[in-house]
Amino acid sequence: LTLTTFTEHALPYCVFSHGGGPPRVGAGLGTHIIDLELAFGDKIFAAPSLNGFLARGPRAWQRTRERLLGFIRGGQLTETVPIAEATLHLPVQVADFADFYSSLEHATNAGRILRPDDPGLARNWREMPVGYHGRAGTVVVSGTPVARPHGQIAPGHGRPDLAPTRKLDFEAELGFVVGAGSAPGRPVPIDDFAEHVFGVVLLIDWSARDIQAFESRPLGPFLAKSFATTISPWVIPLAALDQARVRPPAQDPPPLDYLRASQPWGLDIELAVQLNGQLVSRPRFAIMYWTAAQQLAHLTVNGAALRTGDLYGSGTVSGFRRDEMGSLLELTAGGREPLLLPDGQPHGYLADGDTVTLSGSAPGPGGSRIEFGCASGRVAAAADQPGPLARNAASASPGVS
Amino acid sequence: LTLTTFTEHALPYCVFSHGGGPPRVGAGLGTHIIDLELAFGDKIFAAPSLNGFLARGPRAWQRTRERLLGFIRGGQLTETVPIAEATLHLPVQVADFADFYSSLEHATNAGRILRPDDPGLARNWREMPVGYHGRAGTVVVSGTPVARPHGQIAPGHGRPDLAPTRKLDFEAELGFVVGAGSAPGRPVPIDDFAEHVFGVVLLIDWSARDIQAFESRPLGPFLAKSFATTISPWVIPLAALDQARVRPPAQDPPPLDYLRASQPWGLDIELAVQLNGQLVSRPRFAIMYWTAAQQLAHLTVNGAALRTGDLYGSGTVSGFRRDEMGSLLELTAGGREPLLLPDGQPHGYLADGDTVTLSGSAPGPGGSRIEFGCASGRVAAAADQPGPLARNAASASPGVS
Repeated sequence: LTLTTFTEHALPYCVFSHGGGPPRVGAGLGTHIIDLELAFGDKIFAAPSLNGFLARGPRAWQRTRERLLGFIRGGQLTETVPIAEATLHLPVQVADFADFYSSLEHATNAGRILRPDDPGLARNWREMPVGYHGRAGTVVVSGTPVARPHGQIAPGHGRPDLAPTRKLDFEAELGFVVGAGSAPGRPVPIDDFAEHVFGVVLLIDWSARDIQAFESRPLGPFLAKSFATTISPWVIPLAALDQARVRPPAQDPPPLDYLRASQPWGLDIELAVQLNGQLVSRPRFAIMYWTAAQQLAHLTVNGAALRTGDLYGSGTVSGFRRDEMGSLLELTAGGREPLLLPDGQPHGYLADGDTVTLSGSAPGPGGSRIEFGCASGRVAAAADQPGPLARNAASASPGVS
Repeated sequence: LTLTTFTEHALPYCVFSHGGGPPRVGAGLGTHIIDLELAFGDKIFAAPSLNGFLARGPRAWQRTRERLLGFIRGGQLTETVPIAEATLHLPVQVADFADFYSSLEHATNAGRILRPDDPGLARNWREMPVGYHGRAGTVVVSGTPVARPHGQIAPGHGRPDLAPTRKLDFEAELGFVVGAGSAPGRPVPIDDFAEHVFGVVLLIDWSARDIQAFESRPLGPFLAKSFATTISPWVIPLAALDQARVRPPAQDPPPLDYLRASQPWGLDIELAVQLNGQLVSRPRFAIMYWTAAQQLAHLTVNGAALRTGDLYGSGTVSGFRRDEMGSLLELTAGGREPLLLPDGQPHGYLADGDTVTLSGSAPGPGGSRIEFGCASGRVAAAADQPGPLARNAASASPGVS
């Protein structure tokens, strides 16, 4: 992979360390990182996460971006570090993580594959962005290896075994980072989206399809998703995406009032999925049926408060065309039809050693592109079972726990 | 309600403030709170949560408890505050919150009520403690009002409305507080339960049944649960529950090896649910099919790391007998048969102004009881719709979002 080059229109934020120093907040420009504490003389940036800065709210985000642009245009920035020499860390201390299911094409594709006899969408799908909570503590930064998880797998109708997943998958998503919290009991109106959401990351929702199939009834996915979620180290501020805003697909039926925005929040972001360096798909975010603004309004309509650091995933970004599908579930028709890689090799679900890389870009001012960097993870072999499990099995009598 | 009196065998932990001072960590004894920073001269207790202390791990928990007992028996404690004069705060900064579904009686009752034509348990139920992730940011301490949530409600087969829930319910549970984290990729062996779990709280899992019914397919409960979860201010250390440990119910079929413990972790804890001060149920925790040790082993078997402050709920504690049921769903047969309160009045789902109070106790040494205090919440009227919703409804055209 070649290094991303960030234009002054992008100015994404990151947490980096360099030369053995502690993690600190930076902004990407060209192939370098601007050290924001040195640029602004502000200790809020001498921190291992963006959270302190995010908590200052939208006026502070805007002022910081404007001052930084002023410095850049005035040639006043000297303290930068090459991205290639820095270590990039998880940019946000994640508070709560929720994940949605908001591409009509993905939901339709998945229904056809998983429920061929009854492929229809659930009755709620066109009424709300359906979602669930995930595990915040296992959100990791790009580059972190992802160990193949164990779980209960029950092929056919027999009893399950505990085994490493044989159907390890990715889902190509965007993640939305909440900067400014909200008060308990006060739903966030949809038009206040940009008052709360600071920016966007690339997100890989790792999924073990066989574990998911057995565990999910009736409470939804749990361990099939909770072992790891990878995000990019760069948070693209919403302010960098003005040129990317588009009208989302028409919604039929028209949604309830709280899901109607006065300004469109579709986003024309092009994603690309590479498997071991080979391009397998180019999902287009603009097709998403439910927007991130609708997701935020829905997430809070019951009065649930937002906190700085909340993260929510868009759901898999997929089209109907094979070269726009954002998961191996879809790209391989549930594992039944191998995906042919550009080099002609067939590929099924993820094998140990496979690397998945998600990248993205959006239109910027004057024909420029806003680059998102990438979110990448390599599949590591399943860990050995811990010793005590074998020991317990020998000492426990059936039926006693 | 009368005030709880804590014996020296209980010594539960809390976070309290007094006389306008900042929140700090204390321990309950009699009707007083021991100020632990003053008792030990240790700044870790001058904190707004137990997390710093919990992160020190099980050896430190044990040493602190033993030293505290020594002080008490030596009459060396003078710095105490009456509980009645203190404000009790959320004791733990919650990292991730998960919730299980582990009473066979509750799952059976719920199946009969919700799916009379197909009341059976899902195929996974006897193989694993089925669970899901909830919202950590809306876990609140006892005494916090719980506003009736809005959500999408779809009676019959028509389109949903956004409305305040008409089926607000509670679920009586225990919550288990993780003190010591675990490494990513390393499942926690079931016999290491007490190396990681510090203690137990009472937990009310507020639930909006009508919102839940419409949203839950296929990803499980989301907004029906995420508006509020109430826990008691007192964390009972596992070390106080030695006399409460019992063999859990026999499990048929015998579970997979990773779910077999060499020591039993059933807990003989008696719960009591009061509605507006009237006793409505006495669920017994000892009946729980899946133990907290099994839940922890399952939660981490995929390699998901634990963090200090993780909290997981047991699932509703219910028996088959009406006076042992832990939810109004069960106590009212899905709202169809009113619950008769001790004063003779019928009651359905929760009304505005209702107060739910969960208390609990367990056997202690020499015939004493370990008291858990209580978790209580009063239902507040639904908040008004925020103004912008109405404004948007007027300005948005159908199909545009």
